[in-house]
Amino acid sequence: MTPPAVVSEVLRDYGAVVRDAVRAYLPPAEPRRYLYDLVADYPGRGGKMMRPSLCIAVARALGAPLDPLLIAAAASIELMHNAMLIHDDIEDESDRRRGEPTLHSLWGNAMAINAGDALAMTSLRPLLDVAAHTDPLLALGILEETEHMARESAEGQALELGWRADNVVALEERDYFEMVLKKTCWLATIHPVRLGALIAVAGRVDPTAFVRFGFFLGAAFQIQYDVLNLAGDTEVYGKETAGDLREGKRTLMIIRLLQLATADERVRLVAHLGTPMAARTGREVGWIRDRIDHYGCIDYARQVAHAMAGAALEEYARLFAPVPPSRDRAFLEGLITWVVERTS
Amino acid sequence: MTPPAVVSEVLRDYGAVVRDAVRAYLPPAEPRRYLYDLVADYPGRGGKMMRPSLCIAVARALGAPLDPLLIAAAASIELMHNAMLIHDDIEDESDRRRGEPTLHSLWGNAMAINAGDALAMTSLRPLLDVAAHTDPLLALGILEETEHMARESAEGQALELGWRADNVVALEERDYFEMVLKKTCWLATIHPVRLGALIAVAGRVDPTAFVRFGFFLGAAFQIQYDVLNLAGDTEVYGKETAGDLREGKRTLMIIRLLQLATADERVRLVAHLGTPMAARTGREVGWIRDRIDHYGCIDYARQVAHAMAGAALEEYARLFAPVPPSRDRAFLEGLITWVVERTS
Repeated sequence: MTPPAVVSEVLRDYGAVVRDAVRAYLPPAEPRRYLYDLVADYPGRGGKMMRPSLCIAVARALGAPLDPLLIAAAASIELMHNAMLIHDDIEDESDRRRGEPTLHSLWGNAMAINAGDALAMTSLRPLLDVAAHTDPLLALGILEETEHMARESAEGQALELGWRADNVVALEERDYFEMVLKKTCWLATIHPVRLGALIAVAGRVDPTAFVRFGFFLGAAFQIQYDVLNLAGDTEVYGKETAGDLREGKRTLMIIRLLQLATADERVRLVAHLGTPMAARTGREVGWIRDRIDHYGCIDYARQVAHAMAGAALEEYARLFAPVPPSRDRAFLEGLITWVVERTS
Repeated sequence: MTPPAVVSEVLRDYGAVVRDAVRAYLPPAEPRRYLYDLVADYPGRGGKMMRPSLCIAVARALGAPLDPLLIAAAASIELMHNAMLIHDDIEDESDRRRGEPTLHSLWGNAMAINAGDALAMTSLRPLLDVAAHTDPLLALGILEETEHMARESAEGQALELGWRADNVVALEERDYFEMVLKKTCWLATIHPVRLGALIAVAGRVDPTAFVRFGFFLGAAFQIQYDVLNLAGDTEVYGKETAGDLREGKRTLMIIRLLQLATADERVRLVAHLGTPMAARTGREVGWIRDRIDHYGCIDYARQVAHAMAGAALEEYARLFAPVPPSRDRAFLEGLITWVVERTS
């Protein structure tokens, strides 16, 4: 099933608006060479703009205008996303991001950590700047949501890092989904949807109503993201293929493989996962990749992603049924297909 | 000259208040082992509480009550300070902090970076929590000040890291003071003083009036801090002695030594500063320490610190002359002596 054209159109249109807003917060100030060139690097590499577009589309579908407050919230989301990418790449020892070397590969860990810190604080500025011209309590509410999202993200990242550090392998799917809920869904989908709703109704509904929709959408998104890391085209995808296997990431495919593998295979897989990253061999990565195919783990993950997308569609129908049809509503519906069908 | 007893008394009293407030934001939540134990580690190691006490004393000297807003601002300052320490220690490759191993030495860089991110966002929570019960515009103003401070700090840290990465040695004292203004003074003194003033006058004066006082006080503080790293007692001081020499930090002593050294000595010093940290030898560190004594660089730094303290005293007199005498005013005056006379 092909995602409807409205998805890429809205991503393009709202993406352009957000990109302009983001750029205004990344001026070429001093010290450029040691800080602001680094801070502006990832945002300048592009990106699909799914997170800020989701925020804008939810708000507009619920009747909000595309005003400075909404644009500020969307820009804040995109800036925070880029800030987190910088630190995640260091923590995951990733080599490539959006088709180019990661920031710490270019500048070293120290300067990249500092640039990530600067970008995270910069992500609050659009909200602080717009606060003077809007309801200050709404602005404070959005800042609270942002702090909440960052906390959930840090908890999810801690789980994933901790599992790797302690070579935890006694993991079930519910552990995986708890981690994904926190690490991925909060920033990727739940937070944008909640902010959009909060802005549209000016604090008059409980944004908690939108958490389930965000979770199902985000989980489908993350699983397809991990599938692309294994099965995607490197040129289109922009990260190192099978980098997740090298990083020892606990993806749904790895958890499935741990369940289906023979006792001997499991021992070998656990040994690989427990090897320090620098010592992991391409031969073992190749073997794991082969076992993943052998046990159909990628197909299984795709099935789960589609089930999540189906659940997201049900939540969508429930939440947006009372809302009149619009391009934004069509985008939200189409996005559910897009997250599981995209190839990059 | 011994600092007056009021300094340690106020640090003890306000320190206890702030420590309680800080503790409320560091509950033993899950995941403890991978995140919240790490987040609570540095704040639990103690600390002198100079930054939050400075904020409270300025506000009270100017007539503000010790109310929830003031305590929230002070707790936020202390939490952010601890968050920055975590990342600074990674960036500086420091081994020890407050007498114990640094967080990344205990848990690895990845988990320590993530814990620092979580703590930085946590530092905003006292302000967000208190906002509902106070003037929301004042709360937003305090958040803006916090973002400004974090930006200045990141710029200062970038300068220091960049100088090391590029082995920049063509540095004059004005470069050093620009770096210290941003890296140290904003968080250590300028921000606490500005917040205290902002809260006391509820936004009715320009906090810029307090920048010079904060700068002189903070510069005196940083120079004495660096002197203690070279000449202090390890047991009392809590960091590795002469760690700055191993880290290649551009302190006032090093900049002075670069100016006074013979051509041959300068070549040797520059070579040491340009050597990767892991390859720096204890022999070279010992030689530099000897040259620093030979050229009286520590005495020189102490003189400059005292000159800065003198300038801070003049600013203090100008700013606080119209204010009635109080324990808080006495603390502020005494603190100026304390920062240059302390031995730990």
